[in-house]
Amino acid sequence: MSDQPSTPLLDKVQSPADLKQFSDSELEQLAHELRQETISAVSVTGGHLGAGLGVIELSVALHAVFDAPRDKIIWDVSHQCYPHKILTGRRDRIRTLRTEGGLSGFTKRSESPYDCFGAGHSSTSISAALGFAAARDLGGSCDTGHGDAIAVIGDGSMSAGMAFEAMNNAGHLKKRMIVILNDNEMSIAPPTGALSSYLSRLYAEAPFQDFKAAAKGAVSLLPEPFREGAKRAKEMLKGMTVGGTLFEELGFSYLGPIDGHDLDQLLPVLRTVRQRATGPILIHVLTKKGKGYHHAENSPDRGHARARFDVITGEQKKAPSNAPSYTKVFAEALLQEAADDPQICAVTAAMPDGTGLDLFDKRYPSRCFDVGIAEQHGVTFAAGLAAGGMKPFCAMYSTFLQRGYDQVVHDVAIQRLPVRFAIDRAGLVGADGATHAGSYDIAFMANLPGMVVMAAADEAELKHMVATAAAYDDGPIAFRYPRGEGEGVDMPARGQVLEIGKGRIVRPGTRVALLSFGTRLGESLKAAEALSARGITPTVADARFAKPLDRDLIMQLATDHEALITLEEGATGGFGSHVAQLLAEEGIFDTGLKFRSMVLPDTFIDHASPRAMYDAAAMNAEHIEAKVLQVLGVETLSQRA
Amino acid sequence: MSDQPSTPLLDKVQSPADLKQFSDSELEQLAHELRQETISAVSVTGGHLGAGLGVIELSVALHAVFDAPRDKIIWDVSHQCYPHKILTGRRDRIRTLRTEGGLSGFTKRSESPYDCFGAGHSSTSISAALGFAAARDLGGSCDTGHGDAIAVIGDGSMSAGMAFEAMNNAGHLKKRMIVILNDNEMSIAPPTGALSSYLSRLYAEAPFQDFKAAAKGAVSLLPEPFREGAKRAKEMLKGMTVGGTLFEELGFSYLGPIDGHDLDQLLPVLRTVRQRATGPILIHVLTKKGKGYHHAENSPDRGHARARFDVITGEQKKAPSNAPSYTKVFAEALLQEAADDPQICAVTAAMPDGTGLDLFDKRYPSRCFDVGIAEQHGVTFAAGLAAGGMKPFCAMYSTFLQRGYDQVVHDVAIQRLPVRFAIDRAGLVGADGATHAGSYDIAFMANLPGMVVMAAADEAELKHMVATAAAYDDGPIAFRYPRGEGEGVDMPARGQVLEIGKGRIVRPGTRVALLSFGTRLGESLKAAEALSARGITPTVADARFAKPLDRDLIMQLATDHEALITLEEGATGGFGSHVAQLLAEEGIFDTGLKFRSMVLPDTFIDHASPRAMYDAAAMNAEHIEAKVLQVLGVETLSQRA
Repeated sequence: MSDQPSTPLLDKVQSPADLKQFSDSELEQLAHELRQETISAVSVTGGHLGAGLGVIELSVALHAVFDAPRDKIIWDVSHQCYPHKILTGRRDRIRTLRTEGGLSGFTKRSESPYDCFGAGHSSTSISAALGFAAARDLGGSCDTGHGDAIAVIGDGSMSAGMAFEAMNNAGHLKKRMIVILNDNEMSIAPPTGALSSYLSRLYAEAPFQDFKAAAKGAVSLLPEPFREGAKRAKEMLKGMTVGGTLFEELGFSYLGPIDGHDLDQLLPVLRTVRQRATGPILIHVLTKKGKGYHHAENSPDRGHARARFDVITGEQKKAPSNAPSYTKVFAEALLQEAADDPQICAVTAAMPDGTGLDLFDKRYPSRCFDVGIAEQHGVTFAAGLAAGGMKPFCAMYSTFLQRGYDQVVHDVAIQRLPVRFAIDRAGLVGADGATHAGSYDIAFMANLPGMVVMAAADEAELKHMVATAAAYDDGPIAFRYPRGEGEGVDMPARGQVLEIGKGRIVRPGTRVALLSFGTRLGESLKAAEALSARGITPTVADARFAKPLDRDLIMQLATDHEALITLEEGATGGFGSHVAQLLAEEGIFDTGLKFRSMVLPDTFIDHASPRAMYDAAAMNAEHIEAKVLQVLGVETLSQRA
Repeated sequence: MSDQPSTPLLDKVQSPADLKQFSDSELEQLAHELRQETISAVSVTGGHLGAGLGVIELSVALHAVFDAPRDKIIWDVSHQCYPHKILTGRRDRIRTLRTEGGLSGFTKRSESPYDCFGAGHSSTSISAALGFAAARDLGGSCDTGHGDAIAVIGDGSMSAGMAFEAMNNAGHLKKRMIVILNDNEMSIAPPTGALSSYLSRLYAEAPFQDFKAAAKGAVSLLPEPFREGAKRAKEMLKGMTVGGTLFEELGFSYLGPIDGHDLDQLLPVLRTVRQRATGPILIHVLTKKGKGYHHAENSPDRGHARARFDVITGEQKKAPSNAPSYTKVFAEALLQEAADDPQICAVTAAMPDGTGLDLFDKRYPSRCFDVGIAEQHGVTFAAGLAAGGMKPFCAMYSTFLQRGYDQVVHDVAIQRLPVRFAIDRAGLVGADGATHAGSYDIAFMANLPGMVVMAAADEAELKHMVATAAAYDDGPIAFRYPRGEGEGVDMPARGQVLEIGKGRIVRPGTRVALLSFGTRLGESLKAAEALSARGITPTVADARFAKPLDRDLIMQLATDHEALITLEEGATGGFGSHVAQLLAEEGIFDTGLKFRSMVLPDTFIDHASPRAMYDAAAMNAEHIEAKVLQVLGVETLSQRA
């Protein structure tokens, strides 16, 4: 405990109610202590640092002024929720963040009544807050009661269409609700898009205004005497200053911008809003991501996500790795392909670093498009690029591609446009937990007519699949690969174009065939190795394609073996289901085949290390081994003997 | 042909190039003829009438000024594309619209090079146009060449988040592109949301302006002498008039509003824009849905979608029906439930009529939420309502629920919130074709942990499922039902709450079991009837639940029968796949079971009658019969005998 900061005021806080006893100047001290505690905690656990540091004062002010859990404070994306967790009775577990059995790195309803709406994906908070507000006004029965509904949303999240849809609807319904626009000019990457420029203009001329000026768009909030004059002033000002018109045009009262690190601004504004708000109101708060920790403030991503680190030096304690990450292999393979083909271009949705496309952007800026947090647009934009004769690689995490699913169906697949989907973070992803698991893409892609669906078994395979996707121009094609480091295999100098719909036998054997789609191949080989000690030598095959299936390979495995087990890092409905459909149609089940399909279990698996999560999913080598033994009835046989 | 209008100018138009020879006044005459021809054609075929009539002049003007297919004209949703089809070489087939083998009711790339980007779902056009513009600037190789990229989008479509994402990105990229906002104050239903009010304010004071005033936001477009004065005027005007600021703030030049039925405004504006535009420009055009056909103009939906009709009287020629539509059964059942339970509320995304919630809205306006074309927001808003203690029914078509898929996963399923999904238009839908098919929802819903997934076998079952969903409060639950009329079964006075995860045997039999999920039950019974003539008496069962599966029923069917065939109106990965997964895990395949899963085939099925589409899918009674015979090897046996 020696490296933990001294926090006399914070030590008194068991729940937000304890904040009510503090004076404003004590709250300032509390904010200071909360910042130190947050830095200290994340230095131990790793995780999202910058976002939390940016909302220290806001977290204190919200919990001091409002009355959670009756008032619903909804943190958008919620990677900024660590200070909120510290203030809401979870300080004693804050150093278990993102570890197995510990606190989630996001808000989570099952973790605390103060987490009234969980998140992990961005831009959902306004919709959820509007839902709470409507439920309140309709008399919905909520365990924690009903009060104000408050969405805290970043400027990056605000660029997503979903946030716009929610604002549009909220402006129409006119229910009392509060949106706090946490404008830090940074989502994960620097923001992109016209909205971001617009927001900058909003405070370009007079960054921090006094309350009266800040509230010029929210005349009803002013105390009576000021009101008339303000109304006139507003009429005059409108158009002369940039004003908050975009939000006002959507039906919100606009208030701001105010300094999100100054409690002398935050507290009176929030108190006034709480007292007087009638309809929807937007409070524009300027903050600095990573605020108060210079190692975060000075880093390019403002300390977005950190490994464990040394508080004094800021140095991160990452375990050294021998193998390159799949993300990096993808990025470098794409650069190789793009060097030879000027029609290759790339689309990412606010994840240039996460997808590795930052490298592509550096080399080929005119061919790289970061569309912002806007997967729907991103997919159809890629479809347009393809229709216009380009070869777009649309690089998104599996879990975020869900946002563009209709566009994959409607704009890409139905039109058979050659968009290449690079699906990163496929399967279980570790510390980010269930909200980020890439569990469904095999199922939701492989049943689309004309879609080619590949999964890389290792980093060399990934390189081949990038080359294959670059060469394939007959329709849409997708390839998936996991988070983290590769297997450490030898890398080819150049990716080879794979034959579409052809898998490979990696290790020939007898009796049982393990047919893997994706990176369970390594575990399958380990299982085969272990089984060989018992005299069982499974055939191990890499399917490479979930669509089109390698019919010949599958039929051969099914007819030459007593048992066939498919493996994939995905839920039911994907690769194994397509194999089962083929086997059924071919009449293979008619006469008996010990068929099993190892898929992710039917539960949302909590955050832990990826390996531990695959243990929970029963999909590591020992589980494969056990499955083989069970299917072959080996235990029974040896008992009989 | 006697009822076809006289169209001397239109008769000369084989392709848009022919429009270049007409004078402006001849174009006006052409527009008149085009309107009569459109009315005449739709009177024969049925289909979307109002939208096309609203863009007659715009279609003429665009094709007169621009140079398709080199210039890419992208019709959003594209139900307004009939006049475009008439002008682009498809007049000879226009009376085959939406019929089997005939023209699609939407734009379709495979139908014509003039349909550069197909649609059916809304709000994709700006993304696609931006993709074309980017491909053009990067030298993409497009068969039809590259010119301008023009999106024509309605005010309703503009409310979708995807359109906002695209505007935000386009304003950032600053590429030359044109968005024509076709503002008719009507999407399918009257528009909702703050954006809609905003648009109304834009033209409230001066509905039609001369070009100079209309272009005040697009100073660069003015001829030189006007420019300086205009710039000053713009500065003065800004703020004094409502202006086009929302679009300007997103980086677009704004031009309008202009009268979309006045070629004297449309032609010069489009010509000027074509000549001078540099970056993204938005032209705000006011039109009237159904314009020029008073039976459409005077109907509440402005002639949105029509059956065949009499041109003179406007009377629609619908075949009389004995059975109520599934949609209506859902709506009335929900009203019954809501009468007893004030926490039941409903959410629709711009489809109050299509989902039947117009009835709910009339009875319980405060509990009915039309969020606009905003499925993402709609789903999470419903999640918020559920978290706040309400019982929301989220009623969407299967194909549109794809838009909210991530929200179903992230906000509803992971949080186990009791949102009730009423999934209309499940399976093949007929004349609307592939873009509207509800093929994927079973697969993408049933593999979500904790999701209950039902399908109604007939309209009485649907009523039970509404009651079941109302009563079920432990987590999310979904029920799907098809477009069109029910089976004509007796209706219960009140829906019964079904036991979760329990199916039913409808007709006991031997040898082969048909296990249907959804409305293939009727076809299965017909097939069973036909088979009984051959001495084969299949067991026919109604699964009711794809999740949780009725394990006992399935095991019983599998062990008591030689063959088990599942049926569903959905693609691979759904009900049949979950049954196969269960059978595999239980070791049923080890010793042999003739298992087959009848699913939608792996193709996008073109528009035709639903029955014809299910013929193409090989899923009608005769196909089921044939499948049974084939699986049992009956032909072989009888040959042997």
